[in-house]
Amino acid sequence: MKTYHEMSSKELAQELSAQQERFAAYKQRGLKLNMARGKPSPEQLDLSLPLLDLIPSEGSSEVLQVGTADDLRNYGNLTGLPEARELMGALMDVPAANVLIGGNSSLNLMYNMVSMAMTHGVLGSTPWAQLDKPPVFLCPVPGYDRHFSVTEHFGIRMVLVPMTETGPNMDMVEELVNSDPLIKGIWCVPRFSNPTGCVYSDETVLRFASLTPAAEDFRIYWDNAYAVHDLGQAPPPQQLLNLKDACEKASNSNIWYQFSSTSKITFAGSGLAALSSSEENLGSITKALSFQTIGPDKINQKRHTLFLPNLQAVHKHMAKHAALLASKFDIVGRVLARGLAGTGIGEWTIPQGGYFISFEGPPNTAQRTIELAAETGVVLTPAGATYPYGKDPLDSNIRIAPSYPGLEELELACEVLVTCVRIATLEQLS
Amino acid sequence: MKTYHEMSSKELAQELSAQQERFAAYKQRGLKLNMARGKPSPEQLDLSLPLLDLIPSEGSSEVLQVGTADDLRNYGNLTGLPEARELMGALMDVPAANVLIGGNSSLNLMYNMVSMAMTHGVLGSTPWAQLDKPPVFLCPVPGYDRHFSVTEHFGIRMVLVPMTETGPNMDMVEELVNSDPLIKGIWCVPRFSNPTGCVYSDETVLRFASLTPAAEDFRIYWDNAYAVHDLGQAPPPQQLLNLKDACEKASNSNIWYQFSSTSKITFAGSGLAALSSSEENLGSITKALSFQTIGPDKINQKRHTLFLPNLQAVHKHMAKHAALLASKFDIVGRVLARGLAGTGIGEWTIPQGGYFISFEGPPNTAQRTIELAAETGVVLTPAGATYPYGKDPLDSNIRIAPSYPGLEELELACEVLVTCVRIATLEQLS
Repeated sequence: MKTYHEMSSKELAQELSAQQERFAAYKQRGLKLNMARGKPSPEQLDLSLPLLDLIPSEGSSEVLQVGTADDLRNYGNLTGLPEARELMGALMDVPAANVLIGGNSSLNLMYNMVSMAMTHGVLGSTPWAQLDKPPVFLCPVPGYDRHFSVTEHFGIRMVLVPMTETGPNMDMVEELVNSDPLIKGIWCVPRFSNPTGCVYSDETVLRFASLTPAAEDFRIYWDNAYAVHDLGQAPPPQQLLNLKDACEKASNSNIWYQFSSTSKITFAGSGLAALSSSEENLGSITKALSFQTIGPDKINQKRHTLFLPNLQAVHKHMAKHAALLASKFDIVGRVLARGLAGTGIGEWTIPQGGYFISFEGPPNTAQRTIELAAETGVVLTPAGATYPYGKDPLDSNIRIAPSYPGLEELELACEVLVTCVRIATLEQLS
Repeated sequence: MKTYHEMSSKELAQELSAQQERFAAYKQRGLKLNMARGKPSPEQLDLSLPLLDLIPSEGSSEVLQVGTADDLRNYGNLTGLPEARELMGALMDVPAANVLIGGNSSLNLMYNMVSMAMTHGVLGSTPWAQLDKPPVFLCPVPGYDRHFSVTEHFGIRMVLVPMTETGPNMDMVEELVNSDPLIKGIWCVPRFSNPTGCVYSDETVLRFASLTPAAEDFRIYWDNAYAVHDLGQAPPPQQLLNLKDACEKASNSNIWYQFSSTSKITFAGSGLAALSSSEENLGSITKALSFQTIGPDKINQKRHTLFLPNLQAVHKHMAKHAALLASKFDIVGRVLARGLAGTGIGEWTIPQGGYFISFEGPPNTAQRTIELAAETGVVLTPAGATYPYGKDPLDSNIRIAPSYPGLEELELACEVLVTCVRIATLEQLS
């Protein structure tokens, strides 16, 4: 069989018509499938149901520290329970002393760091809202839409940096960060990057740690959302080098903010979020937080530390998630490989963890593909979502989120995707 | 007996020596009592222990809406569960459509409103951070320290407005708000005001609703923290007029933000916080929130609505709090009356609800009184805390928080307070 690029006009027309026939058949089935967002499936959420029973009222007096200054039911404790800081520190590979527990949302912690920098600067720097020109963030692309919308919301200018298989293009990062004092941050998902799934290489981490930013208030926004979210395959994926240690060795100890949460470990929306950073950064952040709240939900922190007392328990729990997720990633890979075999179009990542698969179609096909899929009732992440301002310059990237649908639904949705990619490409070539 | 102001120097010296003897005796006892913050007591927190059992894992499938688009364990629902909005709306006397559920902290919602106004303005107004001069908030005094520290944190200038028994001095509020476009807000605790305990009169509420602010982005920050926190005495305290209705009648429907929480209903720190406002304000706020978080903890919202399904259940629950609190307020009133009888010094409020008693000593005695109390081991709210910047111009106001200590401790702490007030006054007069 010829690839699409080798076909004659007539062959292309025949192929388009064949694919349109398939498409019509899908359309008639009245599907209702969703591969849009990285939501855990009900089966994954079931894994954490025991959380709900861990602090019953009966006999809870000791667990809740009733009547003490630390009564978990009362006000207080801005930075989080020591055992919760220990747990989230273990997740992020840093000591508890470097950890602050937030509410239920790591996105909210990231927003807050940017918001506070806008109004109050960072460790005494000029508040970004008072700069003559708008501050700038580097945005590795494709990347996470909610990162980009935080910076967009504050009028922060976003500069695209291409992702490679080992992380962002570090030549570009170094050149920009080390020369431009307006560059205040970079969004990173260092392990199982959203959406490409890559793990930043040791060299990438070391180069990050050794940056010599022109801006004193430049920070690396290290969103370690998938720190323990391996898919359980052999050989195990590359480990992420410890950024904190690397920064300290490079005498750059204040350059990093690391974020994490249990949203995709326990319950999405009822989990714990955490921030880690140098003690100097944390001290300043904690002081600013004291104006914002009297402290996060300690009962929920305690539930979590009872459920996941240490990193070993976390890994054991994550293996159950992996068992549910790995087959879904397999399906996507298999259907795409089978469905696009011989066409010469499409590339996609095969991650060993995280929540996403990044699909690259031919230029100018992503938006059309997603529109076509929607016509059949298959919802995909909106085109452009993986780029700042929702604009994918090549209109080629599609983020596939396989976690939520059931296995059969997922297989069908991927088959629909294949047909839609084929049609969008054939329309371009014709 | 003569009042302190009628005493001769010799009599004052004798009295001082008598009080110092008492003081020395208290000091020797090595007390450790705390009347500093409005924390619920362990017995009050016990009232809500059933909350912990309301969503057990077993059989929770329907309650949690497992597998549906609204699965409470998954992402989603930025504004809160309909039933939680209903509950918090009932608390604030507004429809659910006007309510947004926040995390666990109403202070955080207030901070967020101010922070968002700094960076993004209010309904399209100029961001406050971009104004030529700092924005201004009116601060009824004595008032709540955490309100003042939010505005101080953002460099917002604070203008003092004296509290009366019917609310802030409204002549002053009207004159300032209606003429100065830099005045962007006023902090209010309209029912059982912190710390005076007064309830704003109908006239005060109507005058608030009828303001014609010079600033389009002026808002009333109506912190209705004690909406249902009556002490259960007869006759029942005055009801608070509905601000929303009054504002709408005065064609001022966007002028108000109302805040509330269950921090002093269920668990302080593990409760629900809520914001209510006009639908136009809420629409704009919700849009801004979509950049900040994917939504608050819905499982905890559900726990609360199962525990408190309607306003009647809230009132029944609050009657139990009242039973525990009323005797504490009684003790403070009784010990102060007995302890200062005949001295001619000291005035204090006798609130019918809320968490505080406001004590007015002679000028220049509050800080000294609190220092003396601390020497005996009795911790009071820091002097000046009820004023912006921590500066009480007369140095006369002391906030008494009677909720946390046990009855005997409280009685003893108040006796110590009496002795310290007497000494501080005698030192001034000598």
